[in-house]
Amino acid sequence: MPTGRAKPTAVEAMALAVEASARVHGTTSPNPPVGAVVLSADGEVVGTGATRPPGQAHAEVVALAEAGERARGGTAVVTLEPCAHHGRTPPCTEALLAAGVARVVYAHADPNPKAAGGAAVLRAAGVATGHLPTPVEPLRAWLHFARTGRPHVTWKYAATLDGRTAARDGTSRWISSAESRAEVHRMRTTIDAIVVGTGTVRADDPRLTARGTGVTRQPLRVVVGTSELPPGARVLDDEAETLHLRTHDPDAVLAELARRGVVDVLLEGGPTLAGAFARAGRIDRVLAYIAPKLLGDGPTALRGAGVSTITDAVGLVVEQVTMCGPDVRVSAVAAR
Amino acid sequence: MPTGRAKPTAVEAMALAVEASARVHGTTSPNPPVGAVVLSADGEVVGTGATRPPGQAHAEVVALAEAGERARGGTAVVTLEPCAHHGRTPPCTEALLAAGVARVVYAHADPNPKAAGGAAVLRAAGVATGHLPTPVEPLRAWLHFARTGRPHVTWKYAATLDGRTAARDGTSRWISSAESRAEVHRMRTTIDAIVVGTGTVRADDPRLTARGTGVTRQPLRVVVGTSELPPGARVLDDEAETLHLRTHDPDAVLAELARRGVVDVLLEGGPTLAGAFARAGRIDRVLAYIAPKLLGDGPTALRGAGVSTITDAVGLVVEQVTMCGPDVRVSAVAAR
Repeated sequence: MPTGRAKPTAVEAMALAVEASARVHGTTSPNPPVGAVVLSADGEVVGTGATRPPGQAHAEVVALAEAGERARGGTAVVTLEPCAHHGRTPPCTEALLAAGVARVVYAHADPNPKAAGGAAVLRAAGVATGHLPTPVEPLRAWLHFARTGRPHVTWKYAATLDGRTAARDGTSRWISSAESRAEVHRMRTTIDAIVVGTGTVRADDPRLTARGTGVTRQPLRVVVGTSELPPGARVLDDEAETLHLRTHDPDAVLAELARRGVVDVLLEGGPTLAGAFARAGRIDRVLAYIAPKLLGDGPTALRGAGVSTITDAVGLVVEQVTMCGPDVRVSAVAAR
Repeated sequence: MPTGRAKPTAVEAMALAVEASARVHGTTSPNPPVGAVVLSADGEVVGTGATRPPGQAHAEVVALAEAGERARGGTAVVTLEPCAHHGRTPPCTEALLAAGVARVVYAHADPNPKAAGGAAVLRAAGVATGHLPTPVEPLRAWLHFARTGRPHVTWKYAATLDGRTAARDGTSRWISSAESRAEVHRMRTTIDAIVVGTGTVRADDPRLTARGTGVTRQPLRVVVGTSELPPGARVLDDEAETLHLRTHDPDAVLAELARRGVVDVLLEGGPTLAGAFARAGRIDRVLAYIAPKLLGDGPTALRGAGVSTITDAVGLVVEQVTMCGPDVRVSAVAAR
């Protein structure tokens, strides 16, 4: 939908704003990856923007800059309620008022008490506001972070249909398909940190980098555990920053990561560390790549989750099932 | 589509024939559950039929009887190539010729060498024949049986997302949802035999019957293993027939079941027996009900499949993924 021509509905404009935010997903933490579209008074798209890296312009400001005078009397469509506070940049509400927009539509209210209240500020200044509830995947982790103060944890693993992550002899290359592995690499470019245990570093010596075409940034590599990292381990190379946290406590890990501005965590292994996070109730989402294979022996994805009887199982809700090449990809969120 | 009114296309008529066959699925072994629709010369549905129990009429004969004189010059649409041999009933080709149909369309060629050649017999008698390849789920097991001489084995299990079939303390009621359990009961009415190991009988004392509304027949209950069944075990009750096979060899089990006219087997447990079938290459389809729960401990679905390294994993191809209530249901077939 080219700027200056189309006259989208509010729902279509919100979809454009979500698309814009997806393009910056992974580059904005600890700020939310927000998308914004500005429509002129007669409904044409005159500006599109997304959050710039921390300390730089927010999405609304980017979109308003593109729109210029054409924003006057128009509508701003934003994935998150505009902020009303002075952080490293001035409040977006001020920019919207200065531009003279007549209406602001947002998909999510801001749960951050410091920044919230933007819609009320706008209404007090005579701007109409509308709440258009829309799922915004790029905001998922940040909304969790804003509500709980903890980074959002996605536990990702690949296993066979019978639940094995490696064969009896320890071989696991490759349990999942090339398509699934490519998707995980793409995902690594949208998250802030990858977390593994020292056991995984010793056993698999993973690089834990995002690889593939178009990869321009690397997540923080985090190794959890009290044992030393083997000298020469690949996570100690220069391809990305690595943090070794000498603890087994998921909450200590998450607190330290939050302090460093990490909002979105991908927990990649192994079973003992995943068990500790499950036991602590700190798995927010499970992303399972299930390969259509049977092994019948070998390690499983999760150990020691602190569950001894069936009624105490960690409850999840399946939110999406898709095929990833030959594999079944199940995304499930904590049932809370 | 009421008989005598609608004028379906060949594809629509085949869908009606498949529907008719689904209604008798589970009642015809060792004969195939076939469906047939007869169209009059001007294309109206004038007869519908499905295979009667062994020794009684085949689908074509049932549909032709309903059609009567209206079959003359018409078309028979059948899920399986009409048989050309005298079994317990006369050949269907004779019935079709006697009724004067001008054309026969079938979804699957008959792989059974004794019965095959029906299409050629019809053509030799001046009847046009058409092959309309269509997936016919009710014929899956029988086609396998006809090709290999072995009953078709579906290994069914329920596990958590992390691959556990029970908690550490052995509790497993209920891993899967009420929806999934209801579906398994419906499936038990369409198969010929349920197979479990003596270990499952000792551990769970299952009834292994089909339960629920509309259940009118029970599959044969088969317990495999050399140890004795506990007196008073529920599988020894009068609700269905039970067969105890004192062997651990899947091929011996399947040969004995084939001898008894069993075509479609549901393998329900436990992990050691499933492992023996996997090792022998005798799992034709896997039906996994994956519950959105995490346990982190407890038994797994499969043990001792004879795979020691990843490249030797039993390969499957996912053919269908559906939701069954909150559970993910994966149907995968052996990659051969």
